[in-house]
Amino acid sequence: MPSSRSALPSTGPVRLGPDARAALRPAAAGIDAGFWHARREVNARVSLPQGPELLESAGNLHNLRIAAGTARGEFQGAYPFVDSDVHKWLEAASWQLAQGGQEDLAAHVDRVIGLVAAAQQPDGYLNTWFQLREGGKRYTDLRWGHELYCAGHLIQAAVAHHRSTGRPELLDVAVRFADHIDSVFGPPGSGKPLDGVDGHPEVETALVELYRETGERRYLDLAGYFVDRYGHGLLGGEAYCQDRVPLRAAETVEGHAVRQLYLLAAAADLATETGDAELREAAERLWHAMTTTKTHLTGGVGAHHDQEDFGDPYELPNERAYCETCAAIASIQWSWRMALLTGRARYSDLIERTLYNGFLAGVSLDGERWLYVNPLQVRDGHTDPGGDQSARRTRWFRCACCPPNVMRLLASLEHYLSSSTEDGLQIHQYVTGTYTADGIRVRAATDYPWHGTIALTVEETPADRSWTLSLRIPQWAGDFRVRCGGETYDGPAEDGWLRLERSWAPGDQVVLELPLEPRLTAADPRVDAVRGCVAIERGPLVYCLEQVDHPGGGLDDIVLDTTRPLAVKHRPDLLGGVTTVVAAGRRRHLPDPGWWPYSPAGTSAGTADASARHDGDPVELTAVPYYAWANRDDGSMRVWLPTS
Amino acid sequence: MPSSRSALPSTGPVRLGPDARAALRPAAAGIDAGFWHARREVNARVSLPQGPELLESAGNLHNLRIAAGTARGEFQGAYPFVDSDVHKWLEAASWQLAQGGQEDLAAHVDRVIGLVAAAQQPDGYLNTWFQLREGGKRYTDLRWGHELYCAGHLIQAAVAHHRSTGRPELLDVAVRFADHIDSVFGPPGSGKPLDGVDGHPEVETALVELYRETGERRYLDLAGYFVDRYGHGLLGGEAYCQDRVPLRAAETVEGHAVRQLYLLAAAADLATETGDAELREAAERLWHAMTTTKTHLTGGVGAHHDQEDFGDPYELPNERAYCETCAAIASIQWSWRMALLTGRARYSDLIERTLYNGFLAGVSLDGERWLYVNPLQVRDGHTDPGGDQSARRTRWFRCACCPPNVMRLLASLEHYLSSSTEDGLQIHQYVTGTYTADGIRVRAATDYPWHGTIALTVEETPADRSWTLSLRIPQWAGDFRVRCGGETYDGPAEDGWLRLERSWAPGDQVVLELPLEPRLTAADPRVDAVRGCVAIERGPLVYCLEQVDHPGGGLDDIVLDTTRPLAVKHRPDLLGGVTTVVAAGRRRHLPDPGWWPYSPAGTSAGTADASARHDGDPVELTAVPYYAWANRDDGSMRVWLPTS
Repeated sequence: MPSSRSALPSTGPVRLGPDARAALRPAAAGIDAGFWHARREVNARVSLPQGPELLESAGNLHNLRIAAGTARGEFQGAYPFVDSDVHKWLEAASWQLAQGGQEDLAAHVDRVIGLVAAAQQPDGYLNTWFQLREGGKRYTDLRWGHELYCAGHLIQAAVAHHRSTGRPELLDVAVRFADHIDSVFGPPGSGKPLDGVDGHPEVETALVELYRETGERRYLDLAGYFVDRYGHGLLGGEAYCQDRVPLRAAETVEGHAVRQLYLLAAAADLATETGDAELREAAERLWHAMTTTKTHLTGGVGAHHDQEDFGDPYELPNERAYCETCAAIASIQWSWRMALLTGRARYSDLIERTLYNGFLAGVSLDGERWLYVNPLQVRDGHTDPGGDQSARRTRWFRCACCPPNVMRLLASLEHYLSSSTEDGLQIHQYVTGTYTADGIRVRAATDYPWHGTIALTVEETPADRSWTLSLRIPQWAGDFRVRCGGETYDGPAEDGWLRLERSWAPGDQVVLELPLEPRLTAADPRVDAVRGCVAIERGPLVYCLEQVDHPGGGLDDIVLDTTRPLAVKHRPDLLGGVTTVVAAGRRRHLPDPGWWPYSPAGTSAGTADASARHDGDPVELTAVPYYAWANRDDGSMRVWLPTS
Repeated sequence: MPSSRSALPSTGPVRLGPDARAALRPAAAGIDAGFWHARREVNARVSLPQGPELLESAGNLHNLRIAAGTARGEFQGAYPFVDSDVHKWLEAASWQLAQGGQEDLAAHVDRVIGLVAAAQQPDGYLNTWFQLREGGKRYTDLRWGHELYCAGHLIQAAVAHHRSTGRPELLDVAVRFADHIDSVFGPPGSGKPLDGVDGHPEVETALVELYRETGERRYLDLAGYFVDRYGHGLLGGEAYCQDRVPLRAAETVEGHAVRQLYLLAAAADLATETGDAELREAAERLWHAMTTTKTHLTGGVGAHHDQEDFGDPYELPNERAYCETCAAIASIQWSWRMALLTGRARYSDLIERTLYNGFLAGVSLDGERWLYVNPLQVRDGHTDPGGDQSARRTRWFRCACCPPNVMRLLASLEHYLSSSTEDGLQIHQYVTGTYTADGIRVRAATDYPWHGTIALTVEETPADRSWTLSLRIPQWAGDFRVRCGGETYDGPAEDGWLRLERSWAPGDQVVLELPLEPRLTAADPRVDAVRGCVAIERGPLVYCLEQVDHPGGGLDDIVLDTTRPLAVKHRPDLLGGVTTVVAAGRRRHLPDPGWWPYSPAGTSAGTADASARHDGDPVELTAVPYYAWANRDDGSMRVWLPTS
């Protein structure tokens, strides 16, 4: 084991290796107050501490004890990847430990690490499903076995634990498992017994990070081998498993969304560490294909419940949007790696949108209930079949991948906010707190996303050189204004960055004003699902209507009057304090359709004659941020609103 | 066994019992030429004869031989209901035998009946999955075991065989199985060992028909018991299995579409035979809920791939329309029973629409390839995951429920066309052939659906009394004209029937003219999926665009110009001879969306400002009947077209 390991500096989920070809390097930040601080407090106080009990009652910890020989019983859980729930919780808790002052949590982490370590087999292998249920038949079902997937989450947890605490216990487990995997898997002619990949990519980006943490190049090579062996039919050739076409040749994202995105995060990591231009181009091409044709307004991805699939171009249904919470997280992880690799602001634009909408909707305001899928519409008369894919918030899932994934992103969120170069500091996301890099410290104070003012104060700066403070101007912000030392900048920021090069002095102030007028947004006309509709947005937030705010009829009869102005009303009493958008609408009066709901176009019942149909009672519409939906009742909801 | 059995007259899939309270009685018809004759010829010459070979290669017949002890090997097939493929083919072939002149087919039927009979266990039980794979653990998995489902298809096949041939062999097998089931299942207190229902309704309507065929009242009672035991949690309470709510209390159709519809067909049968007013009201209420909120324009039902579920009200997606071919068939079966029970024309309106569109699309023009799901759109750039639920026609399925289901409906189609009362004859569907009832014979000649003229000639009539010839005027036919003995009627036909009461004489002529101008159809505005779109229809046919007729760009960029007239062009060379509809459209020129496809409403890229966006090259659109799609290539397709 490399002796340098424990000497490496603490950092977040992505660190760059010494040879990395990245435009930006991740920088440290701290979140002290404001919107994300509140969400992280709930994560730290409620969600994370509940983890061990939930993992106990679902049987995950029990499985580890049986594997270790310290308990008896049957394997519990329906899936071969239940170990990964434990690993993801460990990763989340480890990032939380870096915040300090969590003695109870630290004790739980130590205990769970002990269970994981005890369950590991002498040669490094660890997967309780195969150890307990399949009679040890390792690697006999790579398509569905999730052994390397679970290994990946274990490695990520170990890296997090090591970076946060400097302690080696879990990293030792991960290294042993990684070495085992490296002894088993390799290309034909390598002398390794198996040429194969896991049906669910995940270990690849974990191996890159293990390389970054340990300096052991074998892990990077193994990750590269795995990434390039997808798409060659080793798993049967299905798009579901990312096996239909090699990533380098792919034209669009496809198949199971989380699998695709974890694989692409690894591709970005590899391009960063190796300078592989073809892999970088593929990642850029696929990101563009995803955002232009397969991303919901919320940043959510994955159009199909069936096979959790990305779906076809412009197939972006509202009520059947799958938009798995894990896919939103994977999209953020991939985009952050692309932001670092390329320096382009658009990647952080998508991160902001996804964070505030498609991701954050996945956890309730109280931190105790979860959504696996994140639809953009729940119809009047919706009947919910229940189960993991319910549109109703749920305490825990049979397939509990999302909750600990949310926990780990919230607990490590400060690592996705800023970056540095030799030239200075780049702020990607705006919070109240500090951004730090190379002798620079900038304090930010803001009530964003409710208010658009971000006040930045230079607290520390090198005295001997000028540097550039780069502010990401969000893609949605048509107008903005920056005041800095008596000067004013009001755009445009064509590549998404406003760059302020100065010889800074402590106490220098920069004020960024982002325009938070509510706005109406329309989609590319090829997005059939929302033709004739608009959505309400304000700043980075997508808004929705909920039934609970609109008594007296269903939401599906409501039409938005786009000729009337939108108003803003801050409601400290509502949903933990949100700014609502108030709009004018009407509730349609539809003629009795008889028994058949289709009729000649142009008649009163038909939709083709748009002008004739929207009589109805005026109704004041109250839109709330999408992330806060389904925290009051189980009524209907919609993001996209038909227009008059 | 009742001695009267073999004396009963030959008839179709639905016969009424002596105490039935139905408004109409099914009447005999014959199809001699024209549209449906051609489809039935392909069924008889291609599809049906291929059945035994396909059932052999898929292993279904092999399983029967193993169960009979005449072969060795492993159970083949992935599902516990593979026996039902055999039974459905036997039913289809039996109806075909009634047409006469099929000696090869008769030999195959005898052979397969021999295999089925030999596999039956001494006590009447028959299910090769449970006999071979589950060690005989009968009725231990009612939710998924499909034992009674398979029994239902066996009974229906037996009734068909008996009605078509008068022979008892298969009916004896079915009666033994039915008696066995009746000895096992019953309500608490009945002394029967099991109180339960099958996860997939089907046996219920079969048992009613077995009662009608044998006169044995126990089968009717057993069917009634089963129907009323759904919705009480015996299967775990899921909507999927029709177990969430009792049918009598249900407000809408829900859960797995085929299961719901087979159960409702049985409810209609029971209401017919017992006069149960509550059950009739429930069936009427649920039919109305289905047609008004959960039926696609094609008559297809079932919005979700996931769980093959009906979906929410007005949730009618195009590209993810499940619209299983079996669900279309089940809808026709249910609607026909409702038509007989109530006498209302709307039920046959839906049958016509479903027959010509959602049903017929399920089989290729050559009779050799099938669609399990019937989407209304295949996008440009569609990547098909393959498998049974592919949008590409397939030779056979792992779950091969649909192909023999299509065969049995086509082979028995003449029994869904007409009915009789004491007052006369009702013609529900128009074909070239004869309609016969109670001393009445009417000959029809028509090139419908390509031409709107239906010429009817009275060939036989009672001399001593007047009677009423009732013609269904299709719901879509705004104008129509009937000429009869120098008089002209041009509607309206408010309840869907034009009634001509006369003292008829042989040679009397009636000519019905239905308006076949192509028309544009719009949907209820609550159907979000097709907002701002229209569909092209002509007569009973729904039309679609296929990529193959529109080179030079994708279909998803096409906008229909509704201000220009539609033209009709008959193309004898195309798709076996179809009338196409030619329309004017434009191909949108869209600005480069950058990386994000959402933009402020009212800008050129947004959809809200409808007037600004539809510049583009004029393109002549050629619409073909939906039933004929996917017979040339695997390109994109769409039914609903955005309007200018």
